[in-house]
Amino acid sequence: MSLTVVGTVGVDSIYTASGSAENVLGGSVSYFALAASYFTHVNVVSIIGTDLDANALAQLRRTNIDTSGITPVQGSTFRWGGRYHEDMNHRETLYTELGTLAEFQPVVPEKFRDCDVLFLANLTPLVQFSVLKQTKARLRALDTMNFWIESARQDLVEVMRLVDIVIIAEDELRQFAGAQNLRSAARAVFDLGPNILVVKMGSYGSALLTAAGDYFTTAAFPIAEAIDPTGAGDSFAGGFLGYVAEQLETTGEIQLKTFKQALLYGSCLGAFACEGFGLSRFESISKTDIADRYRNLQEITHIQ
Amino acid sequence: MSLTVVGTVGVDSIYTASGSAENVLGGSVSYFALAASYFTHVNVVSIIGTDLDANALAQLRRTNIDTSGITPVQGSTFRWGGRYHEDMNHRETLYTELGTLAEFQPVVPEKFRDCDVLFLANLTPLVQFSVLKQTKARLRALDTMNFWIESARQDLVEVMRLVDIVIIAEDELRQFAGAQNLRSAARAVFDLGPNILVVKMGSYGSALLTAAGDYFTTAAFPIAEAIDPTGAGDSFAGGFLGYVAEQLETTGEIQLKTFKQALLYGSCLGAFACEGFGLSRFESISKTDIADRYRNLQEITHIQ
Repeated sequence: MSLTVVGTVGVDSIYTASGSAENVLGGSVSYFALAASYFTHVNVVSIIGTDLDANALAQLRRTNIDTSGITPVQGSTFRWGGRYHEDMNHRETLYTELGTLAEFQPVVPEKFRDCDVLFLANLTPLVQFSVLKQTKARLRALDTMNFWIESARQDLVEVMRLVDIVIIAEDELRQFAGAQNLRSAARAVFDLGPNILVVKMGSYGSALLTAAGDYFTTAAFPIAEAIDPTGAGDSFAGGFLGYVAEQLETTGEIQLKTFKQALLYGSCLGAFACEGFGLSRFESISKTDIADRYRNLQEITHIQ
Repeated sequence: MSLTVVGTVGVDSIYTASGSAENVLGGSVSYFALAASYFTHVNVVSIIGTDLDANALAQLRRTNIDTSGITPVQGSTFRWGGRYHEDMNHRETLYTELGTLAEFQPVVPEKFRDCDVLFLANLTPLVQFSVLKQTKARLRALDTMNFWIESARQDLVEVMRLVDIVIIAEDELRQFAGAQNLRSAARAVFDLGPNILVVKMGSYGSALLTAAGDYFTTAAFPIAEAIDPTGAGDSFAGGFLGYVAEQLETTGEIQLKTFKQALLYGSCLGAFACEGFGLSRFESISKTDIADRYRNLQEITHIQ
């Protein structure tokens, strides 16, 4: 059971106002798995190239993370370089080298197929579709990006029809829906079938909307200094779905309140990710740090 | 006692994705006074031209608003035209005609000088300074804008030294402080003397910071449709300071919790302002509507 995630593992070079980190481990599933691993067991499905040595995935080797579904294939690992503007909510991509990711046709290991929660990180919708067909999850969630909205819209629509939860950046939701207002834009998603929408707003926090009309929103946790926002969205998703999976495992059901709490956990994990280059911040945080931050986030958003 | 505000009354022409409104009453004190009037008595100090007829201020004539400090002077009333982009957080100014505002040297009526709260709406810092010298308020607050930060920075600094509360848009705070991070930017304000900073983030809500290190944040109330964001910031300030003044009058003191609640009221009033062109939405809302919205805002941001 537990949480299965499919997405990219990559090698990133990152330049921000605080400095730079070159050729560090990244990719959506790396951030997602580390964030979610504080709550539940995470099964990772991805692809890398034979250019990575045996130690390259060391940061992901934790008790709660099963990396056996990360398949090495002849060729280069996905590589990405990006430079952030000073306000950190905007960045420019310096290069994207797909490498072996271009041939990624995931075969989900048998032991990962039956899970509480499945997360389809940002990937071509056809790959997301293939993974959905191979798995049986109680809750299915996906992320996507502007590139797929523009180039593979109909495929994306077909995948959206099959998931319960869409986790998406605010501007990409607006682009997908062709509507500025969040509630109006949300209807374009709910009309396809999902009943939970999570909207990521970078340093402005996130919102949860349901097909039943519920609305909940929380701030981003205000960190002292944003070092590197890479992976904040995937770490947010990991905190959100990790907590949801944990609750599903322990209580057997998910209520609206669980999703609200999960939004706060997402905010906490997204903020931690920004406090160091690449995945580095995850080396020093404990479950207690997360609990402290969650309580702190409640204090700064709730009138007692 | 109660609340005295000094700022502009103007005639606006507004173009948004929802339509347009030409030559309607506007200006910072109009929005501010209407929003604050639900909580306390508001004394308005401003200037208009003799081009406005006797009925032009009809929308401001409410039991709780004293407009006797709005002085008509030979010439034209301040006029502003603006067009909003589709996302409503950005606009372009089509024209600004200062008219009599260029000669505004306010003489605060004797009966307005002793007040619980003074709000210096966005004006040239020298005029704000002159008003501060004429009044005796328990709490003094100011707003400002990029134009004064660029063209009259030293004057603005001198005025900031004399107030307790700075209410400012996020990008303008960053510009003033030369720092991206909100907490770092806040220090540039606190170092001058104010101990409360309220940061307006448009449709992303607002944050309250104190010199003692407290931090609190709330979402903007998510309205079904934004018709016209003109005056949202001043209506926010009116809801915020109106509630603070009401609490000062009734309890004699202000605690941190009062400011947090005031932030939510500010958010509610700012959202109402966006639901109609110009000041029109204030014609149909009651104190009960505000209480409902406040409760609603708590529901969507607090985990019960």
